[in-house]
Amino acid sequence: MVTLIDKLQKIISKDKKIAIGLMSGTSLDGVDAALVEIEKSSIETKVKLLEFATLNYNLEERNKILDICANETSTVEDICKMNVYLGEKMAEAAMKVIEKAKIDKTDVDFISSHGQTIYHSPEYFATLQIGELAVIANRTGVITVGDFRPSDMAVGGQGAPLVPFVDYLLFNNKTKGRALINIGGISNVSLIEADAKPEEVVAFDMGPGNMLIDAVVSIGTNNKNTYDANGHFSSKGEVCNNWLDVIINKDSFLTKLPPKSTGREQYTFELAQNLYDEGISRNLGFEDIVATITAYTIRSIIMHFNNYIDVHHNIDEVIVSGGGVYNNTIMKGLKDGLKQEVSIMDQWGYSSDAKEAIEFAVLGNEFLQGNNNNLPSATGANRGISMGKLALPY
Amino acid sequence: MVTLIDKLQKIISKDKKIAIGLMSGTSLDGVDAALVEIEKSSIETKVKLLEFATLNYNLEERNKILDICANETSTVEDICKMNVYLGEKMAEAAMKVIEKAKIDKTDVDFISSHGQTIYHSPEYFATLQIGELAVIANRTGVITVGDFRPSDMAVGGQGAPLVPFVDYLLFNNKTKGRALINIGGISNVSLIEADAKPEEVVAFDMGPGNMLIDAVVSIGTNNKNTYDANGHFSSKGEVCNNWLDVIINKDSFLTKLPPKSTGREQYTFELAQNLYDEGISRNLGFEDIVATITAYTIRSIIMHFNNYIDVHHNIDEVIVSGGGVYNNTIMKGLKDGLKQEVSIMDQWGYSSDAKEAIEFAVLGNEFLQGNNNNLPSATGANRGISMGKLALPY
Ligand SMILES: Nc1ncnc2c1ncn2[C@@H]1O[C@H](COP(=O)(O)OP(=O)(O)OP(=O)(O)O)[C@@H](O)[C@H]1O
Ligand SMILES: Nc1ncnc2c1ncn2[C@@H]1O[C@H](COP(=O)(O)OP(=O)(O)OP(=O)(O)O)[C@@H](O)[C@H]1O
Repeated sequence: MVTLIDKLQKIISKDKKIAIGLMSGTSLDGVDAALVEIEKSSIETKVKLLEFATLNYNLEERNKILDICANETSTVEDICKMNVYLGEKMAEAAMKVIEKAKIDKTDVDFISSHGQTIYHSPEYFATLQIGELAVIANRTGVITVGDFRPSDMAVGGQGAPLVPFVDYLLFNNKTKGRALINIGGISNVSLIEADAKPEEVVAFDMGPGNMLIDAVVSIGTNNKNTYDANGHFSSKGEVCNNWLDVIINKDSFLTKLPPKSTGREQYTFELAQNLYDEGISRNLGFEDIVATITAYTIRSIIMHFNNYIDVHHNIDEVIVSGGGVYNNTIMKGLKDGLKQEVSIMDQWGYSSDAKEAIEFAVLGNEFLQGNNNNLPSATGANRGISMGKLALPY
Repeated sequence: MVTLIDKLQKIISKDKKIAIGLMSGTSLDGVDAALVEIEKSSIETKVKLLEFATLNYNLEERNKILDICANETSTVEDICKMNVYLGEKMAEAAMKVIEKAKIDKTDVDFISSHGQTIYHSPEYFATLQIGELAVIANRTGVITVGDFRPSDMAVGGQGAPLVPFVDYLLFNNKTKGRALINIGGISNVSLIEADAKPEEVVAFDMGPGNMLIDAVVSIGTNNKNTYDANGHFSSKGEVCNNWLDVIINKDSFLTKLPPKSTGREQYTFELAQNLYDEGISRNLGFEDIVATITAYTIRSIIMHFNNYIDVHHNIDEVIVSGGGVYNNTIMKGLKDGLKQEVSIMDQWGYSSDAKEAIEFAVLGNEFLQGNNNNLPSATGANRGISMGKLALPY
């Protein structure tokens, strides 16, 4: 008889594993699938990106997901249906990267999926990532790991951020202190000082990333554009500094001390709509509004360096990832405003697009190895824990 | 380094395991915890109930759960908070049975939890059982398995019924054909003919169990009573047969052919309210209404025997479990109406109260062994699958 152990043994005993990391970010743009080769585990982990594919959500899918993220429009039925629907989507993304790489699905040892966050409240230790793991496992025939955040919250953590653990495994360095900024829907940072131990890593969310920019662009262009491609609109507008000061002062999250995390609950579409309306009533043009909201993101990041990071940590270089690296206005703002040298993740061999998907593959590998894969210093958890759940395809 | 395999090996290699099965039924009465000793696995499985405890929901908890079961009142926030809250409750129920048995929690090899169903739609292959597994695992320090139904649905099954698989493991017999009826919120049956193979087991839901009875009693007594204790009210009333015929004729589920499953979606509180109002407008007294609604449950079961079971299957004896065995009106109705001998589960060494919790412990054991633990002939799945998800406490 083949036991669960036998099923897992085949995977776990391998020195090199083929895995797929699936990431569906708060930007609600779709499912990223990274096919990777992972060598060893823990501090010895080496990852190589073999192939990458994205499956975009269409507007209807985005809107349906937005509906189930909000108390006013969410229903238990829609949540459950979307859980299955997104499970299918995620399986499809996995199959897409498998086909693109021209390998067979039986070559894949495991899938590790972040899931689509539809709720996250550190205050109540409650979070929900959907995209049914059993569906992913059964459509692909591959053992699937996922649902990481609830485990960290179960031991008192904020359930976020999770990637700093992998940032540490991949970017710790004997002589250089590094800050890894990711600009997705929101922006976050991992601080890894030179020769740091894992428990010394500090990481936290810094505020809005692309989320509010995306929303005001969607509003202002009537959904013709859903993001500010390459920072085009913002580069043509002018930042209204008076207004920016008002916005920054109103945002109490920015001055909270780490560890802290935030999300769509705080930087809502409603907030974006209000900001847009306020911009209009201040007689600003569309491009000025986008420029100011983009400056909100830039300023949030720089504030955190000036007031906290550069005061308490030795950071020599800054590495930026996430969709925000393609926004030239953001990148110019950071290069001008930070004293450290700023590079983008792609220069380090990890594509900015793929980084989070790659990292969730590594988190899944740590789960399968039985290692702790949260970072209490980043999440505020009271202890380490092997986060994740496992679903079988057979 | 201790890998996941090592963590599981300790449990799986044992010939006898100590486990806790947790069941939270659709009656929303609370969490049942069965501490069991499970010997071997699959067809050789032997289970002994060591201790049993129940943690009741109070009225506020029940109402909050009812709110998140309905589209009109459910919100993503309440669902997520209740997922964590019920995880705590389920962990508490597990600790309660551990204390009652005067053992140490480190003696328990695993916990297997059904979860509280808040949505179930075979049509959309969507279901949701809440009670966060990561919370149960971390509060108790015990590896926790659960979330079984989505796996069966991922392979085209109805995600229910699941207990027939365990009924088969425990009750198959060389010479006697057995029907196992469970009367919980709804009523269901497993048909195990003499010397049957697992794939020959037929099982399905038969319609309302206690759910509508509970609801009309709650309505009629203004929540003073929440069920018809021992069938007291119904025994004092008279069944209105004309009305009963109308009710039965309206219920299209009763004449559907198996495999079929149903739940709170069909036998809603709203339906109970309508039935109650109809009874009043027919000038029936409270006790007559309860008697008629109780007869609805009895008649549904007998109809299934007359029209289907006794036509297609060789069944020698009927064994009844679930809270319905304490309703003397139901039991008398079944004994009078069925041609088979009717016994209650307690006479077989399994307490009626504990049966489902015991069975979910067995399902968890099969998952950990890597065995398939669904029954395609009962759920309509297109293949066998090792249902469940695994969460770790460390
Ligand atoms: N060419 C581009 N120019 C400007 N912005 C871009 C470009 N490409 C992507 N982006 C921005 O990046 C966003 C997507 O970033 P990313 O995929 O890192 O976020 P996410 O993973 O969905 O969110 P999170 O990491 O917060 O969960 C888009 O919504 C868009 O705002
Ligand atoms: N003494 C009693 N007299 C009459 N009915 C009782 C008695 N005790 C329990 N019940 C009935 O049994 C119900 C609980 O049954 P049980 O625990 O088997 O259901 P459940 O597990 O919650 O539901 P399901 O199995 O459908 O998920 C109560 O709601 C009540 O109607």
